[in-house]
Amino acid sequence: MYIGRFRYNGRDGVEPRIVVARCSAGPWLDLRTAERMRLERRGASASGARRIAAEIAPGSMTAALEGGNAFTDAALAAIEVVEEAAAIPNDSVFIAPLDPPAYRDFMAFERHFSFGYRWRKLPVPGVLYEFPVSYMGSVQGIIGPDDEVPWPHFSRHMDFELELGIVMGRSGRDLRPESAPEYIAGYTILNDFSARDIQLREMAAGLGPSKGKHFASAVGPWIATPDEISPTGLRMRARVNGDTWCDTSSSEIMWSVPEIVAWASAGENLVAGTLLGTGTANGGSGVELDRKLVPGDLVELEIEGLGVLRNRLGMPGEGWTPTRREPAPEAGSPAR
Amino acid sequence: MYIGRFRYNGRDGVEPRIVVARCSAGPWLDLRTAERMRLERRGASASGARRIAAEIAPGSMTAALEGGNAFTDAALAAIEVVEEAAAIPNDSVFIAPLDPPAYRDFMAFERHFSFGYRWRKLPVPGVLYEFPVSYMGSVQGIIGPDDEVPWPHFSRHMDFELELGIVMGRSGRDLRPESAPEYIAGYTILNDFSARDIQLREMAAGLGPSKGKHFASAVGPWIATPDEISPTGLRMRARVNGDTWCDTSSSEIMWSVPEIVAWASAGENLVAGTLLGTGTANGGSGVELDRKLVPGDLVELEIEGLGVLRNRLGMPGEGWTPTRREPAPEAGSPAR
Repeated sequence: MYIGRFRYNGRDGVEPRIVVARCSAGPWLDLRTAERMRLERRGASASGARRIAAEIAPGSMTAALEGGNAFTDAALAAIEVVEEAAAIPNDSVFIAPLDPPAYRDFMAFERHFSFGYRWRKLPVPGVLYEFPVSYMGSVQGIIGPDDEVPWPHFSRHMDFELELGIVMGRSGRDLRPESAPEYIAGYTILNDFSARDIQLREMAAGLGPSKGKHFASAVGPWIATPDEISPTGLRMRARVNGDTWCDTSSSEIMWSVPEIVAWASAGENLVAGTLLGTGTANGGSGVELDRKLVPGDLVELEIEGLGVLRNRLGMPGEGWTPTRREPAPEAGSPAR
Repeated sequence: MYIGRFRYNGRDGVEPRIVVARCSAGPWLDLRTAERMRLERRGASASGARRIAAEIAPGSMTAALEGGNAFTDAALAAIEVVEEAAAIPNDSVFIAPLDPPAYRDFMAFERHFSFGYRWRKLPVPGVLYEFPVSYMGSVQGIIGPDDEVPWPHFSRHMDFELELGIVMGRSGRDLRPESAPEYIAGYTILNDFSARDIQLREMAAGLGPSKGKHFASAVGPWIATPDEISPTGLRMRARVNGDTWCDTSSSEIMWSVPEIVAWASAGENLVAGTLLGTGTANGGSGVELDRKLVPGDLVELEIEGLGVLRNRLGMPGEGWTPTRREPAPEAGSPAR
């Protein structure tokens, strides 16, 4: 099954609605409409069906997943029956398929991460071979397919990152790799846009990255459930303005998806709707080719079985930046 | 005004309810009850009042703040009228006053952060004097007053961090320091518990910290609005099992609260309910005294005007940890 969200223009403004499909080519069905009709077939009044369907198929993917089987039963029933009245128009605009309560990104592709340290003239830290190291992204920075990437005023070096996104279907804690797959709702494409100049500055403090990452992370165009796709051996490609910058495979991953999920849940609650990123695939960024993005560039990420995620870079804006402080005499002289 | 949340045991389980007070000593008023009664005084039926009050005073502090003036008007009316029927029992259990959609922690106290690098035998990175550097915490790790701190199985070195928490009242983007204060809902105490051993390993990769921080961050016991408290010149103290480990002041902060808020909003959406931490106050952690916490330790943080936040350390559990990988020959030899 394939799950996404589209932009519905209602009387009270734009609202997200969940869509489901048996094939990613469509037809895509508005889950709320399909569930409303199913409830009516099962004896609900029109207003009762509308009310319950809105709770089972809310606009939020996280809220939907929190419904557990109430949500998956509705989705399976929708693609089983395929009510024509529930099909959405062909020109519907898809938006980010998820609104995660948390987004955590790992470093699991060795050739990419070892390049990153060498690029910064640093040795590759041994900890990257001890466990999958991560940083927390910003869920407020999530954008969807065809959304423009806001170019933060404090950066001049923009880059993309080609990643596989893992969507958690239910909440777990202290999972082991063996049971981790049961907690996965599906997979999507993730573009962890990066402002390399400020990212490099932040990582010099051993922290984050924050401002270097949190301005935008794109996901989509939709989610494929684990029965449709296995995360191993997927061809992964990146194109910029139509030119192929990367053609690689998910099979080169060093930490497996179950290991990533299990470690993400170690000692903490990993909740439904959470997005985990594998980290950049080998060769899946501009910095590895010594190339930068410029305003207006169109970045297309394609992963086998997961479609194409397209985003265009916006124009740099203007904004405030802090004024440098002088270290206190007793603090010692800071390093560059 | 003071705003908090308490644990209400209803027929369908425990649910959080928002409370407000004119003085932090009480009486604390259940905002939903107070608002329900106000709506009735203004012509609503009992069921209409109950329904609307539940939306204006939901269990989620973030959802409440998203209501804008609908929420603040209700809160101000509640402490103006003080309906006795809305007062909560004296033995009510306060929980985390907020359920932030994002939690970002900065490094703004120079003596603390410069110590941290020296402790790790590293020079103090110059970037810390260029802008307030941050990492993203985990909102799933938020715990409240008197909650036990879960001790993650992968750590043997637990520590606390004494911080001032800033709660965002409404959403903003690209704010300047001059306008930032208008976006602040209030202040609370923040204890950014830290697993120093794994934090140190993660920061060696320049990333996170993640597992070193995300297991638990305590906030509370309540929020004081900016008309009650100024973030400058507040006495800040930490006690462990009754012994004072730290007695410092918020006046030593290097980046001001408005600068922190403005930088947090630069190029990204800073949304209502978000928690920002100032970073550890000078001397506000055990590592600065070369002391570690042990299971069962009671950590009390006190900030002038913000009460006392108490948390006891739990016992270490058991769990899975990843198996070390061998670097690929072409990746080069990793550093420790």
